[in-house]
Amino acid sequence: MNHIAILGPGLLGGSLALAVRARAPQCRISLWARREAAVEEVRAAGICDRASTDLAQVVQGAEMIVLCVPIGAMPGLAQQLVPLVGPTVLVTDVGSVKAPVVDALAPLFPRFVGSHPMAGSEQAGLAAARADLFEGTVALVTPHPGLAPDAVEQTAALWRLVGCDVRTLSPAEHDAAIGLVSHLPHLVAAALVDVICAQNPQALDLCGNGLRDTTRIASGPPEMWTEIVATNHAVLGNQLNAIIARLQELSRDIAGGDDSKLKEFLTNAKVQRDRLIKPKI
Amino acid sequence: MNHIAILGPGLLGGSLALAVRARAPQCRISLWARREAAVEEVRAAGICDRASTDLAQVVQGAEMIVLCVPIGAMPGLAQQLVPLVGPTVLVTDVGSVKAPVVDALAPLFPRFVGSHPMAGSEQAGLAAARADLFEGTVALVTPHPGLAPDAVEQTAALWRLVGCDVRTLSPAEHDAAIGLVSHLPHLVAAALVDVICAQNPQALDLCGNGLRDTTRIASGPPEMWTEIVATNHAVLGNQLNAIIARLQELSRDIAGGDDSKLKEFLTNAKVQRDRLIKPKI
Repeated sequence: MNHIAILGPGLLGGSLALAVRARAPQCRISLWARREAAVEEVRAAGICDRASTDLAQVVQGAEMIVLCVPIGAMPGLAQQLVPLVGPTVLVTDVGSVKAPVVDALAPLFPRFVGSHPMAGSEQAGLAAARADLFEGTVALVTPHPGLAPDAVEQTAALWRLVGCDVRTLSPAEHDAAIGLVSHLPHLVAAALVDVICAQNPQALDLCGNGLRDTTRIASGPPEMWTEIVATNHAVLGNQLNAIIARLQELSRDIAGGDDSKLKEFLTNAKVQRDRLIKPKI
Repeated sequence: MNHIAILGPGLLGGSLALAVRARAPQCRISLWARREAAVEEVRAAGICDRASTDLAQVVQGAEMIVLCVPIGAMPGLAQQLVPLVGPTVLVTDVGSVKAPVVDALAPLFPRFVGSHPMAGSEQAGLAAARADLFEGTVALVTPHPGLAPDAVEQTAALWRLVGCDVRTLSPAEHDAAIGLVSHLPHLVAAALVDVICAQNPQALDLCGNGLRDTTRIASGPPEMWTEIVATNHAVLGNQLNAIIARLQELSRDIAGGDDSKLKEFLTNAKVQRDRLIKPKI
């Protein structure tokens, strides 16, 4: 790769620039930001070769363009990109929901490939960016029907370059699976905080590391997460109903004093959750 | 303090021994374990002056006895202790539920004080013990009516010695507050794992650090947590109903496409959860 254009200098865009610089120092990196102040911040951080609010200038000559903007900003930015991008340029994104993004962007670019690196944190913005953010994480690449296999491979190669373990699945499969392991947990963590504060706001000050970890993701940026949840609402509606039903069953078991069922539930959860103890790769 | 007896060599008992040794090297530490194999493990770790399965031998001459055994084992152990403990000896425990423990043990010892250090991890056993486990955590001390104030102060002094920020509240207040910030989150984390695995067991392999943190506590010891939940079942029943109701409201808001309500919910959760970002003390 000789030239990559990264659109959006947030946590993911900034980290991608740092990671590409570290892993492929010969690659030219251009960075687009919507606001001039953000461009100044990018320049001060020295993480790319060119930074600008001028989209045409940023993408000129790039072989690969990575949209690292919020999901809600993607369709508008994609429309601006269409006249600037030739048919050989690979376009990908890092959005947390894939089917609606792929449906909107695939018709616009012959080589659009959806992707989603499972990296990030509850912190946002360039200040939180790190060259090793992607190392040891899973990156999901979501090809749609009719896409050229070499475009998928080119996208996968980017994520492997920055340290990801790449998996391929369809956009709909992505949204169902990531609804379960990312979006639903976010809603549940936020609901936990909400219930605690509604019942006893002082209790939060008594907590241990358990609650600090359980609710960490609830400190993520609310605008971004509102867009993610709203975009994946059909999937999440069913998944919310599933966890509500599970909690209702649990509530009945506990009220009924059925300790063996409770123990079986907690034992199964531990066995499954222990699969996550070893870091990936 | 000249002599402390710690009953139970698990994560908390072992860490307490290490912490007292580090902070008050002149204090004699005796450790009781139910099984001879555990006594051998304690001796090999060299964390105390005397270790034995003989309760009378361990508590002889101790000014303070700390029960670090599972909640379910406390009443039986307390009965064995009664004939061995003089009226000036302070007896405390580290159980995660307080009202039932205090109700059972306070009548047995003139100087029994319930306490609960909010320290621990999903790991269990002596192998996970650390001298700094309690540093910067909150320890809750739960006096009951009629208890001598100096007994409360003596208990608080132990937890301050090992690095805790001590708070005092009644046993019932404890169980309501800690139900919210510890027991309920445990059940919710386990339910999340359960729902994910019921819908798509492979999805767990795609997760990022978010889910790893959200569900960490679900890797805790199932027997211990079954006892905790069963012991605090009346409180937890109401708290489970509260989070079920909150998730139902959220499900309706999402189905109705009300992004402003969703954003308000996520924003409030972030504001509240951000209170936990700075470590205590």
